[in-house]
Amino acid sequence: MSTPHAAIRALLFDVFGTVVDWRSSVISELETFGRARRIDIDWATFADEWRSLYQPSMEAVRNGTRAWTILDTLHRESLDELLEKHGVIDFTDHDRTYLNETWHRLKPWSDSVAGLTRLKSIYTLATLSNGNIALLVNMAKHAGLPWDAVLGAEPAHAYKPLPEAYLRTAAFLGLAPQQCMMVAAHNEDLAAAKALGFHTAFVARPTEHGPGQTIDLEATGDWDFVTDSMTGLADLLGA
Amino acid sequence: MSTPHAAIRALLFDVFGTVVDWRSSVISELETFGRARRIDIDWATFADEWRSLYQPSMEAVRNGTRAWTILDTLHRESLDELLEKHGVIDFTDHDRTYLNETWHRLKPWSDSVAGLTRLKSIYTLATLSNGNIALLVNMAKHAGLPWDAVLGAEPAHAYKPLPEAYLRTAAFLGLAPQQCMMVAAHNEDLAAAKALGFHTAFVARPTEHGPGQTIDLEATGDWDFVTDSMTGLADLLGA
Repeated sequence: MSTPHAAIRALLFDVFGTVVDWRSSVISELETFGRARRIDIDWATFADEWRSLYQPSMEAVRNGTRAWTILDTLHRESLDELLEKHGVIDFTDHDRTYLNETWHRLKPWSDSVAGLTRLKSIYTLATLSNGNIALLVNMAKHAGLPWDAVLGAEPAHAYKPLPEAYLRTAAFLGLAPQQCMMVAAHNEDLAAAKALGFHTAFVARPTEHGPGQTIDLEATGDWDFVTDSMTGLADLLGA
Repeated sequence: MSTPHAAIRALLFDVFGTVVDWRSSVISELETFGRARRIDIDWATFADEWRSLYQPSMEAVRNGTRAWTILDTLHRESLDELLEKHGVIDFTDHDRTYLNETWHRLKPWSDSVAGLTRLKSIYTLATLSNGNIALLVNMAKHAGLPWDAVLGAEPAHAYKPLPEAYLRTAAFLGLAPQQCMMVAAHNEDLAAAKALGFHTAFVARPTEHGPGQTIDLEATGDWDFVTDSMTGLADLLGA
């Protein structure tokens, strides 16, 4: 039997939660900013609320009732909505842009840079994220993520889990789904990719959503590889 | 007077001729392949003919008479046309794909990797090439080019020198033209970028077209920076 990874040329990465620890990064930046402005809000709750608006905000774009809109814009709309809900009205446009770009400054999990650097010696590494290009490029500069290509929803003009997000990303690389492996901490993301013929690797991130996380604690599908770090994935792939 | 580069966040690079020496790379690969197949053609002439079909092949896409088509496809059509012209009829589809991907394996000028690596510590480095994403990503893996983002004609769906190629590339990075500098060995490329508000850097590559080169031997416009290597550009920008 041939090994499942013999045909794989590119690894396509979910980013939020899989490569970077969005929650603790966002909470930390919000708390610092709030303290400087003497605004007393439970910023952990605020961060969770911000993220809870993520999927709904993309849905209008996915179902075609809204024209293509990048994630920076959706994040900003959600931020404005939450600031109003929490009674914060005196943040300037400059403040809000700065806070919105917290998502450009997310910190990687401790194993991400080392694991990706090893994997890059064998595979083409590309993002397959719903984040927009500027967000992902700035994050990579900030966090030292060694992508070969920053792809995903924006160049594909489709948000995951729509099939076009996956298929167009593979096509941009000149590859068939069978030559690519989706790497994600989210079972639903892998299920969408696998249905299209992509190989799959689950990287458990059981604290992505904080101490009370209830989903994606473990692999729930028949994925090709299961691990709990990028260095673990490099081990499994012999990189 | 403020230095012209104080506002610059990203450097956008022309690739063919500016970063890589396409002509000697293509001639070398064609000669090796031709020798193995015992086909006696003047491969330097063949390479120049192949490149001479480059601009005409994009023109139908630029003027809208042909739907968006990536450069790999245009290169392949030109290759097939030239092989027929030179009486080569026994190359298989596999042979032709291999030869077409010569453009994915172009060698960098000797100063490119060192210069880009220095520039990357200060600026976001992105391609703004008419090459398609797969071509540029494979080239970067092969040549060690440390791009932060592989952008340009394919994600912009517009070939240079159409304004959309430049403007959409800046927009993908979340930047205004005034925050970007176009880096090219071609005066016409810089003229198109400058007209849109981009900063400009000319990198002389007087042997790009071989010993008989007659164009782009020197800067013919009022560019912000003029040099003859990527390490020279890094020197000028203090990187």
